[in-house]
Amino acid sequence: MIDISDRIRCKELFAKVTSPEEAASFIQPGMNVAASGFTPAGYPKAVPLALAERMKKEHFQINLWTGASVGAELDGELAKVNGLARRIPYQTNDLIRKAINNGSIHYSDLHLSHVAQMARNGFLGGKVDIAVIEACAITEEGHMIATTSMGNSASFVQSAKKVIVEINTSQPVELEGMHDVYTPLDPPRRGIIPITGVRDRIGTAFIPCGPDKICAIVPCDIPDGVRPFSTVDDNSRAMTEHLIRFFRQEVQAGRLPENLLPLQSGVGSVANAVISGLVSSDFQDLMVYTEVIQDGMLDLIDCGKLLFASGTALTPSPEGLNRLKSDIERYRKYIVLRPQEIANNPEVVRRLGLIAMNTAIEADIYGNVNSTHIMGSKMMNGIGGSGDFARNAYLTIFFSASTAKEGEISSVVPMCSHVDHTEHDIDIFITEQGVADLRGLSPKERARVMIENCAHPDYRPQLLDYLERAENKCGYAQTPHILNEALSWHVNFQEKGTMRFK
Amino acid sequence: MIDISDRIRCKELFAKVTSPEEAASFIQPGMNVAASGFTPAGYPKAVPLALAERMKKEHFQINLWTGASVGAELDGELAKVNGLARRIPYQTNDLIRKAINNGSIHYSDLHLSHVAQMARNGFLGGKVDIAVIEACAITEEGHMIATTSMGNSASFVQSAKKVIVEINTSQPVELEGMHDVYTPLDPPRRGIIPITGVRDRIGTAFIPCGPDKICAIVPCDIPDGVRPFSTVDDNSRAMTEHLIRFFRQEVQAGRLPENLLPLQSGVGSVANAVISGLVSSDFQDLMVYTEVIQDGMLDLIDCGKLLFASGTALTPSPEGLNRLKSDIERYRKYIVLRPQEIANNPEVVRRLGLIAMNTAIEADIYGNVNSTHIMGSKMMNGIGGSGDFARNAYLTIFFSASTAKEGEISSVVPMCSHVDHTEHDIDIFITEQGVADLRGLSPKERARVMIENCAHPDYRPQLLDYLERAENKCGYAQTPHILNEALSWHVNFQEKGTMRFK
Repeated sequence: MIDISDRIRCKELFAKVTSPEEAASFIQPGMNVAASGFTPAGYPKAVPLALAERMKKEHFQINLWTGASVGAELDGELAKVNGLARRIPYQTNDLIRKAINNGSIHYSDLHLSHVAQMARNGFLGGKVDIAVIEACAITEEGHMIATTSMGNSASFVQSAKKVIVEINTSQPVELEGMHDVYTPLDPPRRGIIPITGVRDRIGTAFIPCGPDKICAIVPCDIPDGVRPFSTVDDNSRAMTEHLIRFFRQEVQAGRLPENLLPLQSGVGSVANAVISGLVSSDFQDLMVYTEVIQDGMLDLIDCGKLLFASGTALTPSPEGLNRLKSDIERYRKYIVLRPQEIANNPEVVRRLGLIAMNTAIEADIYGNVNSTHIMGSKMMNGIGGSGDFARNAYLTIFFSASTAKEGEISSVVPMCSHVDHTEHDIDIFITEQGVADLRGLSPKERARVMIENCAHPDYRPQLLDYLERAENKCGYAQTPHILNEALSWHVNFQEKGTMRFK
Repeated sequence: MIDISDRIRCKELFAKVTSPEEAASFIQPGMNVAASGFTPAGYPKAVPLALAERMKKEHFQINLWTGASVGAELDGELAKVNGLARRIPYQTNDLIRKAINNGSIHYSDLHLSHVAQMARNGFLGGKVDIAVIEACAITEEGHMIATTSMGNSASFVQSAKKVIVEINTSQPVELEGMHDVYTPLDPPRRGIIPITGVRDRIGTAFIPCGPDKICAIVPCDIPDGVRPFSTVDDNSRAMTEHLIRFFRQEVQAGRLPENLLPLQSGVGSVANAVISGLVSSDFQDLMVYTEVIQDGMLDLIDCGKLLFASGTALTPSPEGLNRLKSDIERYRKYIVLRPQEIANNPEVVRRLGLIAMNTAIEADIYGNVNSTHIMGSKMMNGIGGSGDFARNAYLTIFFSASTAKEGEISSVVPMCSHVDHTEHDIDIFITEQGVADLRGLSPKERARVMIENCAHPDYRPQLLDYLERAENKCGYAQTPHILNEALSWHVNFQEKGTMRFK
């Protein structure tokens, strides 16, 4: 058995150390099970695996609430045994995605800063029944030291009647001190979140819990299921160059300070490539206030350009995770992990004046953005925190390659097949083709900038043709559309495998 | 000439009192002219009228930036003489609307809390060239006392090199003391907005300016062009009853405190009817944190149920305006007017935990909301503050009658023809038919609740038919759609004048 005795500092809790199977038996059919985890970081592993085994025999379902996406041991295994009735608020797992898109899991895709508050106040169908939290250690007082993510763990523990703790020995105890745990009161008693700088600490290093709530402690040594990033491709490189050029121009025009403003950057390969790209820029003294700390941030720390990064999860690649673990004492000076309710909080986002950078599936010529649905119906991952940031940031940027599926899909379309970010939210759109600066423009002006600067040249004539005919058809109204043609590009793709009309 | 001598307490400024024509001559072609005014309240009148006269002869255009909509003397008269190149950020004037929808005015429809910050930082095409501000009075130090709205006035004055002041004698000097003027610093130096309760005052009673910036002072006695509300119809009454029943249920379930949470309520007749409806409810000790204070709020004050209202404009009906003016000393104890950057600020909205109540043009079965565009292309008014509130509130409610155009338009459609508020933002939708509580539901579940509880019975079978065929067509994906049919209801209306298919 894995030895966790040095990780439990509250001696009375030794008696609660048990097997994953025993711990999983606290979970009853139909429960709202609230787990730690944000991106595949800091989620419980041993208990879900045992739960999945039990579900194979007993055939029941639970509702799973997390911070964001989690690894295969939780999302994947429970989906495999048809163990999930509802999933909230974000996912990236292939099996869950499949189940969501064949109607067998109810998926509620929520703004990540809203989840903890909605859960506490019973907006999501009951309250937390049981919390399952991965921890590095348990303190003398029975509180938990989180691992590689904060997510909604603290709020879930606060709401839960019972808590199962997984002590994961693959997570270095040196993570202790990296967390800043703060759960706001709910209105009408909510106070100010006193963060005025990226580095500010306002809470505790542990998740408040106490020994009585803990019903089981399970040892585990399965590492986070982090995944490698795709190699930086030409498109990502081009987008990064456009971004850096744009930033320079903004600094020159006095619209951004020389060291920019705190950067928020979405999750995944493109976002990581963009952040990495800043390493070779001439920007100094950068700050990051974001959700997920990926390899790019470590690169920026290593080259001395990043002063500090605030996030809610550490999700580097496997190589990055080794780098982080092997030098954690140094990296810890540059990083704080906050609950997602704080990392994504509109109060802090607006106050600090973030530069929000997120990726889009598609955008329309008027600047609306789809970040969630393929061809309007199929869920990709979810909105994640992009809405928390895009609406409230100082400057909101979205990225996408101008085409997908070997050029058969244009990412710039007449009308988005689903809208997650509205025309009111997008300042700047960047593809490998260039930068569309949409600020202060009317929709018809935006359309021309989007087509000329961002659409792939193959699709520009087709887009312009739509725009001009739409303008004629509706008398140059605010947002010209030919409604029985607006989604025809998607229909064409569904029927003929291409958005090209000839 | 109108005597304003007792309203100018800074004696050196007497020399700057001049005619509207003289003042208007400071405005040059192509300038960004930033005016006071929010809803038809507190906007300049004499100078724009003189400017319109001059434009008739000299044929030039300006860009007009305001708080929100303004009265006919400004928007209407300048549109009439084709004097506006660009209009930012909101309007409700028939002539402007027509010009926006025939392509002759570029209209940028912005979240109202964003405007001041974007203007200060040069995001809107240059900066403020000149500000034209309606005031009650000028203080000894050359600062201005605002009138019936705060809007963006303070920030515009701060940015402007020159300021034209219109002293309006139809505005009671007793408005002094009702304003709380606070302009945040811009990032990275922005601090906390220290409002933790609806009543909190954090700024000055005047708009900081100083005598040097003031280039002209113009007397005026034209009253605000406020308009009567439509009579409360059966639909509004039914929606209000549904709302009150819903609130009771939420209190009972412990999801809302007994005196609810601070209410935000949109602008116009329906919103006003809903607020008025609370007069006959059993809710007590209510608070309002909103944009516009209309008659309903005065009713709530008069019946002793409203403890305090914070807004950015006083825009009652003509009758309500008289009521307010005749008893202003009393009403002043219950009301504060803040800059819209504060009234709509995401920091405060999230902290106070508002109940956001706004009206929709249409909603789709999945809970997306269109608040701006008729049939996807024609601008109605604009998004106003609804996005500031809907995204960041504790509870987000939208209202609409279930049909329009004598039943030929269904307000619940398969897919919105334009999206201003996404499925992630809407908690509750209310029509005269009932309440759809969308919280925690997956899109396919939401669709059934929207159809059963909110759609008009005439359209329910047609909606259900779409939903079921869409589910079959796309294999029960997250958000089922038949893309070449999704907007067919709108197309049918455009072609045949009805959304009914038989």
